[in-house]
Amino acid sequence: MTDFWKASPALERRLQRVVAIVDATIDYPGFPLREMALAAAEAGGKLLRPALLIIGSSFGRAAEAERIERLSAAVELLHIATLVHDDIIDEAPIRRGHPSLHANVGVKKAVLAGDWLFSRCFLLSSESADPDNSRNLARLIAAICSAEINQDLGKYRYTASVRDYLRTIAGKTAALFSLALHAGAAEAKAGTRIVQSLRRAGYDMGMAFQVIDDILDFESDADVVRKPVGKDIAEGLCTLPLIYALQTDRAGLESILARGREPNQAVTAEAAAAAALRAAELGGLERARADARRFTTRALAEIERLPASQPRNELLGLAERLLDRAY
Amino acid sequence: MTDFWKASPALERRLQRVVAIVDATIDYPGFPLREMALAAAEAGGKLLRPALLIIGSSFGRAAEAERIERLSAAVELLHIATLVHDDIIDEAPIRRGHPSLHANVGVKKAVLAGDWLFSRCFLLSSESADPDNSRNLARLIAAICSAEINQDLGKYRYTASVRDYLRTIAGKTAALFSLALHAGAAEAKAGTRIVQSLRRAGYDMGMAFQVIDDILDFESDADVVRKPVGKDIAEGLCTLPLIYALQTDRAGLESILARGREPNQAVTAEAAAAAALRAAELGGLERARADARRFTTRALAEIERLPASQPRNELLGLAERLLDRAY
Repeated sequence: MTDFWKASPALERRLQRVVAIVDATIDYPGFPLREMALAAAEAGGKLLRPALLIIGSSFGRAAEAERIERLSAAVELLHIATLVHDDIIDEAPIRRGHPSLHANVGVKKAVLAGDWLFSRCFLLSSESADPDNSRNLARLIAAICSAEINQDLGKYRYTASVRDYLRTIAGKTAALFSLALHAGAAEAKAGTRIVQSLRRAGYDMGMAFQVIDDILDFESDADVVRKPVGKDIAEGLCTLPLIYALQTDRAGLESILARGREPNQAVTAEAAAAAALRAAELGGLERARADARRFTTRALAEIERLPASQPRNELLGLAERLLDRAY
Repeated sequence: MTDFWKASPALERRLQRVVAIVDATIDYPGFPLREMALAAAEAGGKLLRPALLIIGSSFGRAAEAERIERLSAAVELLHIATLVHDDIIDEAPIRRGHPSLHANVGVKKAVLAGDWLFSRCFLLSSESADPDNSRNLARLIAAICSAEINQDLGKYRYTASVRDYLRTIAGKTAALFSLALHAGAAEAKAGTRIVQSLRRAGYDMGMAFQVIDDILDFESDADVVRKPVGKDIAEGLCTLPLIYALQTDRAGLESILARGREPNQAVTAEAAAAAALRAAELGGLERARADARRFTTRALAEIERLPASQPRNELLGLAERLLDRAY
């Protein structure tokens, strides 16, 4: 586990139990790829989605700890399953510094491994959650798939509008943040107004998170090993900083992107890096960062309306940290 | 819809409503591949799985028709989703005479389309079914994925034992037949012994169905357009007729399969067809057919233990037709 949560020891302990449930679920004798899926899970990130669910549940009255942790594990399994399939879609060879599952075992087995993880996610959620929350999870997966398909349809065209972009990240990221936060509260029988506020706050936090994530792709990281910039652009994605930059100088950027390739085909890594640097010069990052700040401000305002409490403070702190992260 | 059910007009009418629910589910504004998924669904087969669910429900007392039809549609959506992903795994260009979805839209979109269909299946089942049946559906998908992964791990090696083969088809086919039949009865609150009998009968019918399906790959079809034989062998699969033939003359068959290829690589279509013909000469088809007959006999014995009724007769007739089909 990362040390992202070390300032919140109680939450960290619960997340360790969530990780144990995820591991036990994957480490299943009938699943012949369990070692690789375990490795994929352990390369894991900050466990943001299960953390949101647990924080959400602490706004309620009657939170049965184990059920909440199992539902949190279901949400993390869903996230891992989408990463496994996403890496196939994006032909990504690396995930968090390790070879991606499909690079390890081939596309076909990775398709099946993702399906298997989806099914375990549904099983865990249908065993642990209120039927309403279980249904919301199924609806959410449908929304994530639609968003990913829409994003894929526009690949290598670099013509997405701000509105297209926001719709895509709402489906692929914000919807899951929102679900995690409000499903936790709903499972713990928090009041309707609190659940509604958390639904909105989770959505805005997810929007801010994804915009920042997309900005990071444009920034080289001087502290750590030099990472390539413009990976998303090379994969054909048109994210917010590039969209803003294209509004300022479409002709210039298109001529950079056209270097060494045919229309609608893959952009070279060099052209993508050059386009990323040019987008930064054109102010695309500042404008995107201002949007992320706006989403965060909305989330903070929504959270501040909640009754003063320890979980409210935890959530305020988290929203701010997600805006400021640089990794 | 096919005319497979024309002798049972009441069932046929209900299956038409199931098809309408499947179509309405797929024809969803947020799903950008809906036309292609609709085409994939309409290239549809005999709707065996929803038919089993409906027949199962008629053994119970309180079958609310619409709920049963929605659950039947969920089972058919699950079947379509697995076909979409299977065609990726098997690199199959054609599905029931039409281009397969991934051949039409590419592997990446087909992965997402399959995920989307899975999620709609879960949503429909969690909206319509008893939570126990919904959980069984999730467990079933996990079992199907495990069976497919195991099958994929053995590809192009032609070393599966009869036991490996039976385990694979139990997971990928018999489990769904069994679930459809007994979930219908359970939803309609049939007695425990009836539900148990239907679970076993469905399993044996599914085993017989898959063995026959695998035998058909070895037979050329003189009535219709000449179809290639040995497609499964060319895709690296080692099905029951080949397993039996290998027991009789492994050296001879291995030398046929080795023609024009490296070990563990794809077999040529010509070598696969020659191996299929040789397997037939060696009596592999007769031995496999005897197994299918044995599974059918077990299913019939199980069904005959049920109280005499119209659905019992329907099920007896269906088990016999599935054994005798030649298409």
